[in-house]
Amino acid sequence: MRYEIVIAGTGGQGVILAGTIIGTAAAVHQGLRATQVSSYGPEARGGHVYTEVVISDQEIDYPRAMRPDVLVAMSNWAYEEFARSVKEGGIIIYDPDLVSPGEAPEGVRLLPVRATQVAEEEVGLRLSANMVMLGVLTAICDVLEEGPMREAIRDRVRRSLEQNLRAFELGLELGAKLRSSR
Amino acid sequence: MRYEIVIAGTGGQGVILAGTIIGTAAAVHQGLRATQVSSYGPEARGGHVYTEVVISDQEIDYPRAMRPDVLVAMSNWAYEEFARSVKEGGIIIYDPDLVSPGEAPEGVRLLPVRATQVAEEEVGLRLSANMVMLGVLTAICDVLEEGPMREAIRDRVRRSLEQNLRAFELGLELGAKLRSSR
Repeated sequence: MRYEIVIAGTGGQGVILAGTIIGTAAAVHQGLRATQVSSYGPEARGGHVYTEVVISDQEIDYPRAMRPDVLVAMSNWAYEEFARSVKEGGIIIYDPDLVSPGEAPEGVRLLPVRATQVAEEEVGLRLSANMVMLGVLTAICDVLEEGPMREAIRDRVRRSLEQNLRAFELGLELGAKLRSSR
Repeated sequence: MRYEIVIAGTGGQGVILAGTIIGTAAAVHQGLRATQVSSYGPEARGGHVYTEVVISDQEIDYPRAMRPDVLVAMSNWAYEEFARSVKEGGIIIYDPDLVSPGEAPEGVRLLPVRATQVAEEEVGLRLSANMVMLGVLTAICDVLEEGPMREAIRDRVRRSLEQNLRAFELGLELGAKLRSSR
């Protein structure tokens, strides 16, 4: 089993934290292995940021995502940079308020999720859009489990924990709806 | 400018968090670029964990550490796995209560730092050994700056912030002494 997730966007969106939460959930709370490759731009200037997480039940020789199963795109750059790498049968989750996706790559499903709007209007914390995306991911990716993800959020989130957990729950609900509408 | 740091040890020592703090300090608070490659073992079982951080003032093509400038070894496995890769002129910082180093690689300086003991006896929080090591790193690596590192600790540390900051300060003092005794 090898499962690859890429999350990409802009500095300040919590992209790397989202990847760290997935890695922590998988390794600490599910007993799997995980690798994470992150690039920190000069975030203060709104630079490009990405994180690649690979999850496996065995040792991971190559830590980078080669053909992601899922891409979460939180900026146009993120979509343009990574959409083509998503594997056939894979999924691209994007925030339509931030991304104008081109045509979907062959055999890849596009799922729009208004994560930023939900974070702002339903949670009151725009910065929790990453947690909405984590909820959607958890609902959609079989390898991710709700309980371990909640534990990892508690382990890693530094501020506004209750709001971030609420955003995660809203994401789970959105993801469950998207999943059932396949 | 390209500066490579590897921190390695055992699950639960906060190895990956330490790398994230360095990446955050460099990118968010110093306007540099950074990449981080982490491997999460099944941490609950005390698995092997490492994180590689590359810092540059330019875009980083290859995110992995090839010839680390500095290795922080917090387990025997960490030393055995990474010591040989440290570049000539580089430094290996290790906790002598956790690591029995073999002979130093050619041209590499070995610096023992009782981080775990300091964390336990002077801070009262064994888990802050990683922050002691961050303080030593900051004192020793020209690319890392005190203020940005403190900010990044405030950004990223989830629990016992004051104790972790205290551990960082103790590490800074230890590092300054080691540095002046070169």
